[in-house]
Amino acid sequence: MSKSYVVAILGATGAVGTRMVDQLAESDIQVSKLKLLASARSVGKKMGFRGQSLTVQAATPDSFNGVDIVLASAGGQVSARLLPEAVKRGAVCIDNTSYFRMNDHVPLIVPEVNVDQIQNHHGIIANPNCSTIEMVVALNPVRVKYGLKQIIVSTYQSAGGAGQAGIKELYREAKAYLNNEPVKSEILPVKGGKRHYPIAFNLLPQIDVFENNDYTHEEQKMIHETKKIMCGDKNSTELKITATCVRVPIPIAHGETVYFTTEMTPSSDDIRRTLTKAPGVVVQDDPQHQVYPQPVNVIGSDATFVGRVRSDMENQRAYHMWVVADNLIKGAAGNAVQIAEELINQGAVHESKASAVLFE
Amino acid sequence: MSKSYVVAILGATGAVGTRMVDQLAESDIQVSKLKLLASARSVGKKMGFRGQSLTVQAATPDSFNGVDIVLASAGGQVSARLLPEAVKRGAVCIDNTSYFRMNDHVPLIVPEVNVDQIQNHHGIIANPNCSTIEMVVALNPVRVKYGLKQIIVSTYQSAGGAGQAGIKELYREAKAYLNNEPVKSEILPVKGGKRHYPIAFNLLPQIDVFENNDYTHEEQKMIHETKKIMCGDKNSTELKITATCVRVPIPIAHGETVYFTTEMTPSSDDIRRTLTKAPGVVVQDDPQHQVYPQPVNVIGSDATFVGRVRSDMENQRAYHMWVVADNLIKGAAGNAVQIAEELINQGAVHESKASAVLFE
Ligand SMILES: NC(=O)c1ccc[n+]([C@@H]2O[C@H](COP(=O)([O-])OP(=O)(O)OC[C@H]3O[C@@H](n4cnc5c(N)ncnc54)[C@H](OP(=O)(O)O)[C@@H]3O)[C@@H](O)[C@H]2O)c1
Ligand SMILES: NC(=O)c1ccc[n+]([C@@H]2O[C@H](COP(=O)([O-])OP(=O)(O)OC[C@H]3O[C@@H](n4cnc5c(N)ncnc54)[C@H](OP(=O)(O)O)[C@@H]3O)[C@@H](O)[C@H]2O)c1
Repeated sequence: MSKSYVVAILGATGAVGTRMVDQLAESDIQVSKLKLLASARSVGKKMGFRGQSLTVQAATPDSFNGVDIVLASAGGQVSARLLPEAVKRGAVCIDNTSYFRMNDHVPLIVPEVNVDQIQNHHGIIANPNCSTIEMVVALNPVRVKYGLKQIIVSTYQSAGGAGQAGIKELYREAKAYLNNEPVKSEILPVKGGKRHYPIAFNLLPQIDVFENNDYTHEEQKMIHETKKIMCGDKNSTELKITATCVRVPIPIAHGETVYFTTEMTPSSDDIRRTLTKAPGVVVQDDPQHQVYPQPVNVIGSDATFVGRVRSDMENQRAYHMWVVADNLIKGAAGNAVQIAEELINQGAVHESKASAVLFE
Repeated sequence: MSKSYVVAILGATGAVGTRMVDQLAESDIQVSKLKLLASARSVGKKMGFRGQSLTVQAATPDSFNGVDIVLASAGGQVSARLLPEAVKRGAVCIDNTSYFRMNDHVPLIVPEVNVDQIQNHHGIIANPNCSTIEMVVALNPVRVKYGLKQIIVSTYQSAGGAGQAGIKELYREAKAYLNNEPVKSEILPVKGGKRHYPIAFNLLPQIDVFENNDYTHEEQKMIHETKKIMCGDKNSTELKITATCVRVPIPIAHGETVYFTTEMTPSSDDIRRTLTKAPGVVVQDDPQHQVYPQPVNVIGSDATFVGRVRSDMENQRAYHMWVVADNLIKGAAGNAVQIAEELINQGAVHESKASAVLFE
């Protein structure tokens, strides 16, 4: 990584964006210039990066002149509008929004799982949904070694999955509730949605909007993204997966109960051993000493934590595990910066093939 | 219900006990005398019942002289010690603790499911675990109509499942956290356990102690109690069930994602219609209008709420639903008082057969 790069962070002031600045600072990437881009609301705001104080600018197409790598997390519509402009100007974009994820010309990357797909980009690489990333990091070692047939997942997702505004709403509501003041909900379950419900001291079995099949968009994302990442096809029938996504009143980190069936018949110890050696995974699994992953303990880490590994007592080849990761780091900023590192390692920063296929 | 009864509530000052007093007050049961029993700590405390002010007494064996019905929720050890004394004195006991639940001579009752078993008591009837009750109320109509083969459940259980002390700990920790003060945990995950972890703004994938097979006692309870209630045998192989139980930072009400497979192939609409007509169930399921059960809305109700009913898109005969109920009411006090009403309706209060089989 001796070459140095001009990097732009689009959405730099957001929940993911601020972590992106930190993750980039901690990475091995040589940054000759960093541009911090956000909306007009944030212009002039100062943010620190490797000892410098940088000023946030409003994002325009020309913000991307001379930029090599864009890390984007300013929402789907902003990516839709600005990333083609960045690609046109020769940048490679790593996008945190869901906008391009299902595009056949856009690799959807979790480095621990499908790093080999990075080379196939046409200027845009998509970062998967936060709840998908931690699940595939934890399950891929099982898939590779024992074959994976089916996944049934229930999520316990933090308010931070809805950005800074989600975290603030949780704290604001919790304070009001504890002071016996009226709780007013403005953001969750879906920003800009018709109805808002409290998240403090409550559970919301809705993340993102509902589809016609009564699944939420978040649940559909987990299904199709997992298939695209693990099987190379968002509609693959090779691996079955179904999901229920629930928002819980914690600020950061997503928990997941993952039930899965395999082709072979490993013991739960076999699975635990396999995971202990797996990249990006930290096993915390010692029930007799009450050791298991907890959101409060994983905040700030770029790893995926796994515990409560055990066999279904009545079904051969069926297992449980409990997975937790920081949704803003491994679920977003950390994974994006890891992709940038791989892109550089593979010498693929400027190798974007004609981007025409992407935007035609 | 023209006859009137002497009732004792053992553990009257607790999270469940206080609801027991309220549920009894709201029931049709004629109470000629109510005895409120707790530990020596609560002696002299006043509690209201149907317009009277009653004084809490310390529970001793002789507290049960002349008592017809005991509603017990003072912990397993207290039930173990005092219920035999109550039975000896001719009372029928409805026990909320887990102490007698697996005893072959003790019916484990959820009136919506197995009311016909009440008659088989020998002085003690057990009230199931809170997370089991709401699940079987929601699943039994499906089992009866379409056949039930397998259940995979993940719970989202409130701090109130650990009693008054659990609720207090949640609020105390949340206040400290929001004021940037140190959070000190003393109760959860298991009162008297070796290690305590924060529940405020956190998730704990441990409820009750761990068994040797790495399941928690709570998970095992859900498995064996469901089999005993639905199939009449705690080890039945007719119905497969597996569970992961997680404590979440809400004060009252338990949520559950319930995945189940059936023998027949109903549509999700069929299941919704069946549940709409089912006793004790309230269907709240209109995704397009963001209608689904939420803990904040079910607190205080004695029903079981079901929403998010939908088919697994890749597995025939497999479905999801989201179940929520007030763990202190339908999960405990409400179900117990409902059992008392049935006991009276069936004329089975004094018909306890020789209790010898129970305590030999
Ligand atoms: N939170 C997660 O767990 C997570 C995980 C994976 C992916 N994502 C995705 O990442 C994106 C951002 O999420 P977040 O949680 O970081 O949200 P956030 O906290 O609300 O931050 C949004 C960021 O976008 C900027 N922005 C908004 N409108 C803009 C515009 N018109 N032009 C330029 N910048 C604009 C905001 O700038 P201002 O400060 O100026 O408003 C802010 O920097 C979303 O698409 C989300 O789905 C989030
Ligand atoms: N919470 C739930 O969701 C739930 C649901 C189903 C079943 N249960 C079961 O019900 C029982 C009570 O639960 P809870 O949540 O109500 O607990 P809790 O709030 O801690 O209340 C415990 C009650 O037991 C009394 N008690 C304690 N030690 C006693 C003693 N030595 N002699 C007489 N009374 C004594 C307490 O009296 P003092 O006030 O004097 O200490 C209090 O009234 C437990 O076995 C629990 O597993 C709970």
